[in-house]
Amino acid sequence: MHEEPTSLTPAAAQALAERVAEGMYARDRASQGLGIRIVRVAPGAAELTMTVRGDMVNGHAICHGGFVFTLADSAFAYACNSHNANTVAAGCSIEFLASARLGDVLTARARERVLSGRNGICDVDVANQNDETIAVFRGKSARIRGHVT
Amino acid sequence: MHEEPTSLTPAAAQALAERVAEGMYARDRASQGLGIRIVRVAPGAAELTMTVRGDMVNGHAICHGGFVFTLADSAFAYACNSHNANTVAAGCSIEFLASARLGDVLTARARERVLSGRNGICDVDVANQNDETIAVFRGKSARIRGHVT
Amino acid sequence: MHEEPTSLTPAAAQALAERVAEGMYARDRASQGLGIRIVRVAPGAAELTMTVRGDMVNGHAICHGGFVFTLADSAFAYACNSHNANTVAAGCSIEFLASARLGDVLTARARERVLSGRNGICDVDVANQNDETIAVFRGKSARIRGHVT
Amino acid sequence: MHEEPTSLTPAAAQALAERVAEGMYARDRASQGLGIRIVRVAPGAAELTMTVRGDMVNGHAICHGGFVFTLADSAFAYACNSHNANTVAAGCSIEFLASARLGDVLTARARERVLSGRNGICDVDVANQNDETIAVFRGKSARIRGHVT
Repeated sequence: MHEEPTSLTPAAAQALAERVAEGMYARDRASQGLGIRIVRVAPGAAELTMTVRGDMVNGHAICHGGFVFTLADSAFAYACNSHNANTVAAGCSIEFLASARLGDVLTARARERVLSGRNGICDVDVANQNDETIAVFRGKSARIRGHVT
Repeated sequence: MHEEPTSLTPAAAQALAERVAEGMYARDRASQGLGIRIVRVAPGAAELTMTVRGDMVNGHAICHGGFVFTLADSAFAYACNSHNANTVAAGCSIEFLASARLGDVLTARARERVLSGRNGICDVDVANQNDETIAVFRGKSARIRGHVT
Repeated sequence: MHEEPTSLTPAAAQALAERVAEGMYARDRASQGLGIRIVRVAPGAAELTMTVRGDMVNGHAICHGGFVFTLADSAFAYACNSHNANTVAAGCSIEFLASARLGDVLTARARERVLSGRNGICDVDVANQNDETIAVFRGKSARIRGHVT
Repeated sequence: MHEEPTSLTPAAAQALAERVAEGMYARDRASQGLGIRIVRVAPGAAELTMTVRGDMVNGHAICHGGFVFTLADSAFAYACNSHNANTVAAGCSIEFLASARLGDVLTARARERVLSGRNGICDVDVANQNDETIAVFRGKSARIRGHVT
């Protein structure tokens, strides 16, 4: 059943966000396979972490930008779906500021910025273990039919 | 040694692009691990393919956008480095037009659009086995020191 | 009345594109005020021109990027609406490759790349009088209710 | 003469930001001509306002997106140059969330998000007089030689 986010107490909204994340993660083989872990979720926000593995390194001996993107995109998905309304990515942009290297522990912090009807904007920063920002990501979300759990 | 792209015959530029791609791919554990294969390269262009596997599926039962992005980003990298000058991604944007599903065979076609000094723009279209465009990607490249091979 | 684009002969689609552009331009005080002129339109395409005036110059003595964007955005609008279905911009990105200067004659060439349901992608290149590309623009369009004329 | 931002007291950095903005605005015929006014500047931040005039309206009877972009782009420029190091836009993206209409008073708030070497990311939100966000803008800046004043 769908609870309207606006009618929820903060505690209930938080509980819903956690329940949605658990349900999503259980089916999210992609994030699981990359070793992505959920550090925390909240209504409209998510923090995920991933360690750069040997199979994520590209021809320049640095982490393939695709995996940095994927971590950010996962954080975006958990933040946007935290209200339990099915939401997908319409488009994303990413700016790469520094390289990630083998063994780096990356953290992506996603936060919804604006919701306007069915469309939303979510910003994600990706930092390494030294708290250096290595990428900034912006996702445009579109709410579709149905609920996550 | 670096051959200036502009001084090459078309055949030599094509041979160089192929040699660079082979050298990059041999070290590109990321693309190898995802089953990405190079269909063809040419000066300023590349075509890569990837089949959507079970470990690429996300919580909505469709291919995680991160893997579609990664395929496009790899095609971008092979196109931009085809002149043998080391080139990295400064930023990228992707628009998702349709979902990719388990078993779909995706093809990314990258083509350099503009080179302006050390900066370039490269467009990549990603289509499925029915030649339906599922995503369009634009990468901004920055040439750095050194050569690929 | 609305003619379905797909049912039109090429000549009728061209005539419709021209009629729509005339109707739009007559109400388009923004483009008129900037001296933007329509060079040609076709189904899914448009070419517009603008000369950089003294009141378009910014604090760095070069054309304010906003006017380069506006020219590209107008070309995007004429291309997307050429089928006579009301279409608006959902979002745009622009990469600036070279400066435009006072007196430069800029040409924006827009071309629809993909249509997927109500959403589309349109690419616009902006060049100066020496045919040097100064900016590349990508617009994401959304079709809304109604027709242009 | 150039003062290194990092060596300045907060009061001196603020005074520098104000002095730079005054110098830029005096030469910024583009912003002046559009009626753009600077509400406030601070190190790495700027707030600008603009009223939608009759000559900013497009064929859909709403403010041409180009002028919303131009306001955001100006705010971006004042924020990025506030440290007195010449900085230009490498690229920008904008998402349009709601229309601006004739007579609307728009406010753009720009804030530097990340600086990484010569490159930076600056986010700008554009709101109307009802504090409704109508667009979000992200600018990528590149520092070049020289100082603003």
